[in-house]
Amino acid sequence: MVKLDEKYMKLALELAALGEGNVNPNPMVGAVVVKDGEIIGRGYHKKYGGPHAEVFALEEAEKEAKGATIYVTLEPCSHYGKTPPCAEKIIKMGIKRCVIATLDPNPLVAGKGVKLLKDAGIEVKINILKEEALKQNVVFFKYIEKKIPYLFLKCAITLDGKIATESGDSKWISNEISRARVQELRHKYMGIMVGIKTLLGDNPRLNARIEGGNNPYRIVVDPSLKTPEDYNFIQNNEDNKSIIITSKINIGSGKHLKFEKDYNVKFIFLDGNRFLMTEILKEIGEMGIDSILLEGGNSMISMAFKERALDGGQIFIAPKITGDNNAIPFVGGFKIENMKESIELKGVKFKVYGDNIAIEFNL
Amino acid sequence: MVKLDEKYMKLALELAALGEGNVNPNPMVGAVVVKDGEIIGRGYHKKYGGPHAEVFALEEAEKEAKGATIYVTLEPCSHYGKTPPCAEKIIKMGIKRCVIATLDPNPLVAGKGVKLLKDAGIEVKINILKEEALKQNVVFFKYIEKKIPYLFLKCAITLDGKIATESGDSKWISNEISRARVQELRHKYMGIMVGIKTLLGDNPRLNARIEGGNNPYRIVVDPSLKTPEDYNFIQNNEDNKSIIITSKINIGSGKHLKFEKDYNVKFIFLDGNRFLMTEILKEIGEMGIDSILLEGGNSMISMAFKERALDGGQIFIAPKITGDNNAIPFVGGFKIENMKESIELKGVKFKVYGDNIAIEFNL
Repeated sequence: MVKLDEKYMKLALELAALGEGNVNPNPMVGAVVVKDGEIIGRGYHKKYGGPHAEVFALEEAEKEAKGATIYVTLEPCSHYGKTPPCAEKIIKMGIKRCVIATLDPNPLVAGKGVKLLKDAGIEVKINILKEEALKQNVVFFKYIEKKIPYLFLKCAITLDGKIATESGDSKWISNEISRARVQELRHKYMGIMVGIKTLLGDNPRLNARIEGGNNPYRIVVDPSLKTPEDYNFIQNNEDNKSIIITSKINIGSGKHLKFEKDYNVKFIFLDGNRFLMTEILKEIGEMGIDSILLEGGNSMISMAFKERALDGGQIFIAPKITGDNNAIPFVGGFKIENMKESIELKGVKFKVYGDNIAIEFNL
Repeated sequence: MVKLDEKYMKLALELAALGEGNVNPNPMVGAVVVKDGEIIGRGYHKKYGGPHAEVFALEEAEKEAKGATIYVTLEPCSHYGKTPPCAEKIIKMGIKRCVIATLDPNPLVAGKGVKLLKDAGIEVKINILKEEALKQNVVFFKYIEKKIPYLFLKCAITLDGKIATESGDSKWISNEISRARVQELRHKYMGIMVGIKTLLGDNPRLNARIEGGNNPYRIVVDPSLKTPEDYNFIQNNEDNKSIIITSKINIGSGKHLKFEKDYNVKFIFLDGNRFLMTEILKEIGEMGIDSILLEGGNSMISMAFKERALDGGQIFIAPKITGDNNAIPFVGGFKIENMKESIELKGVKFKVYGDNIAIEFNL
């Protein structure tokens, strides 16, 4: 039975994954309805604000749902939100057994969906492939708990750890396959953040250039408000997703007012002109952005490591060597006496992209 | 027929590989004798100065060799060297057909073995799995042609390309699996070379700590003859394999005379006190050493890259970050304006060793 439950739950998790990048800050959720060994309904949460996974699965099953088992990767909701509660729909459709990967992480509602189902006489089984379900929604679970966005580093470095030459040239360190992978990451995370130096140097578009990809929020940390008006960041803001984090000193400056009025750029104002990554993340979290892809440069990445603010990352290593001590390292500013004091990445996994290797980690 | 020939040649190549580390500066060679689809003899060159692969294979086959086919990874020798010519033995044993992976690279003898065989009425086929055979003996082929040892880099770096902290601490960057792999490399190459800073910092034993492993020649590049008498390099020289490359200025110095007389340390003297990697390699080659594992440090590696003297290498990357701009990079001293000027490694392959990744390359 457990084997079969795991089999169907695995399918539900695979369905859930199809929603990646389109549901934030909601979780990815998948559901499968099974009767007499036959799959009669499949669904996943497709879009933020849209119907939940259970709804799609139950509607495919129609009246066959009566007496069936439903597999769902997250506890069915019990409250009226943007949609009616799924637990009610499950009961109404006559489901006999409900298998759940993990409870709702929100302590205010955790277990309430299960209670509704049980009270209605439905057999409920929880924690099937729980680890996998938690891992799939690691962004959602962190954000729901702390209201701090999940911070994921992406950068491309040479074998000697550089992201650019002294003069700022960084084109191209990684190969084409690696660069295509970055577009997927930009789709996956809700926001993308760079420091002002990276913006000035590269004039990046910071969009997700994959078919059907969602553009992320674009965030630049720019204490002195140096972002030029003619840059992509300002000019290509049709989706109103450009956000500048700057010092309060710039409130009401001509540039600030113009960027807001003419280009709909959003602003976050912080005290002083040397920000902490933790305060930046807090502000971004309050805007409802649950996850950030940090793309550089040296100062931003160093700050993230220093404050232990990273949740994970993927560093692409190209088989190139600058051999130049003045080239820009991807992280700097630390002083260590012994190798033991170095930062150790955890949960390391490798992915080969042609002659580049990506090292994935969490912290 | 070709398929079958390749099958047996593959086996011969596998046998040849068993001689790795024990035959230098001779080539690895393997041989298989086949009759009526049955393998009746197997052999490989086991030890420098010992019998050739063909001898072992033919002796196992005994008189069954009459009318059989022999597969050999390198053209059978035609001259009297340390052993009688194998071509003669093949003829004498009544072999009917001889399949050869590649001709002898020495232009003075190439084709002579084949001619002997053909003149004796033996059917000869060459260039079966030639590429594999050339690759297997890349060290031998380079050395025979140029009398310059094959230079292979091994180093362990952090993700930011450092081999030590500013104070010189490097223990341990790589994990245990990677370090075990280094012992294999030390067995494989005939010599191992470090700069004086690495020697002073680590007091390394520079031996091959694997069962049945051959110790390599130990070479330190030490222009000012700073090597301390009480170091492993001097004290543990029972095998007379310690070699110091120093400036001619030190000829006849008390230290030089003592090291030679009391510890049997060998010396190579060069002009001035800033050597070129190319002159170092030339001198080492003249001592009959066909291959060098370069283990560091920064100056030696930088010199090797600068002079394009490396044939290949394996760089172990540990998931650690010093973040310290003053930590020692594995290579430095270059000045580049654009990323395009960086050194690009070729023939890149990756090997995962736990949470370390090794990048193998050639240049």
